Amino acid sequence: MAIKLYDLCGAERARRFSPYCWRIRLALAHKGLAVEAVPWLMTDKAAIAFAGSTTVPVLVDGERSVADSWTIANYLEDTYPDRPSLFEGAGGRAASRMVAQWTESVVHTGLARFVMLDIYHHLDPADRDYFRRSREQRVGATLEAFCADRDRHLESFRKSLEPLRRTLGLQKYLGGDHPLFADYLVFGAFQWARAISPYQVLEGSDPIAKWREQMLDLFDGLARKAPGYPV
Amino acid sequence: MAIKLYDLCGAERARRFSPYCWRIRLALAHKGLAVEAVPWLMTDKAAIAFAGSTTVPVLVDGERSVADSWTIANYLEDTYPDRPSLFEGAGGRAASRMVAQWTESVVHTGLARFVMLDIYHHLDPADRDYFRRSREQRVGATLEAFCADRDRHLESFRKSLEPLRRTLGLQKYLGGDHPLFADYLVFGAFQWARAISPYQVLEGSDPIAKWREQMLDLFDGLARKAPGYPV
Repeated sequence: MAIKLYDLCGAERARRFSPYCWRIRLALAHKGLAVEAVPWLMTDKAAIAFAGSTTVPVLVDGERSVADSWTIANYLEDTYPDRPSLFEGAGGRAASRMVAQWTESVVHTGLARFVMLDIYHHLDPADRDYFRRSREQRVGATLEAFCADRDRHLESFRKSLEPLRRTLGLQKYLGGDHPLFADYLVFGAFQWARAISPYQVLEGSDPIAKWREQMLDLFDGLARKAPGYPV
Repeated sequence: MAIKLYDLCGAERARRFSPYCWRIRLALAHKGLAVEAVPWLMTDKAAIAFAGSTTVPVLVDGERSVADSWTIANYLEDTYPDRPSLFEGAGGRAASRMVAQWTESVVHTGLARFVMLDIYHHLDPADRDYFRRSREQRVGATLEAFCADRDRHLESFRKSLEPLRRTLGLQKYLGGDHPLFADYLVFGAFQWARAISPYQVLEGSDPIAKWREQMLDLFDGLARKAPGYPV
């Protein structure tokens, strides 16, 4: 029985845009594990209550269910040790935690300013009120006000990516000469933006854009073939 | 013959303040390798020309000389594989590169604003003109102007450390339950500040400050015993 992944979708069921779910889609492909990625609406808390979670990703592997992207990645690494490693050692696992925290506090926070309103327009009508209410409370502004003048935030966002840019100037991937979970952590953020918004968050000449192209090509274009906007 | 490390010093020869050299001091201690840390002035380029470098750290191990802190850490890891690992695997080595770039572009850049003028006052007279000229050119201001109103930059600096703070809320060290080179990379920056400036860059209640205390205690207080200001 294939692994099942509850995966956030929009009004179009094929449009998958959770950065946390994308990490796991790529981690599963890295491990060579087949997956049924079940479309899930963010208000359908009942569908994942069995896993003790209110958010996705939720992974079901036979009798076991696992929630939270970090926990899932560790579960996959430890349950399938004979398949390609996501961390390549204890040091990689530990340091990936820092990459995850950097991604969430810098990249997710920065991108939210550009894509939040575009997300709203792609949501299933059932999710719209919930999304608007919860996000407006989080950011302290209407979605429209939060994303107005987004151009004004573009330069500082691009500058905030400097640690990633410099690293990719020194090695092909965060994993070294091939991608590891650290790459999927960061790429999930860009795939989130790409899935949901036509806004160009990177300059084409940016080394990060080149790396993103490589990431889009992985696993027979898994991320590139998914519904999204050209980048 | 002990390994020799050319190590930046101030007018007081015992005051060692290069963040790049501190990474290596701790890496050597981690490997259990004795070192003679030779005081070096930044204008004494002639003393390290044999290594093809104009900056420290420069490490001399028997017949071999190695420059650049990243190159030295890799040299130590590969030359002394039977001693405790600095990276714990290929994934840790690759991801530590991102930690290094984050440290340099966020932590070093942020701290420079607080400590640059204090560095100047601690320098050997022979180094002062060189330091002032090269640093003022780099930052586009006099040292005095650059460090004026430093309090105004404190909140945004502390906020920029959020990825580190969150990670240390999840695990004791960047290396997991024990320190690895990733920790020494970041700690080197705080040890630089502590060596040269009384300015309090962290709040005492910050989880990063707690981690810094643990780092100061490592290897029988190697970093704590070195000349520096209370933090």
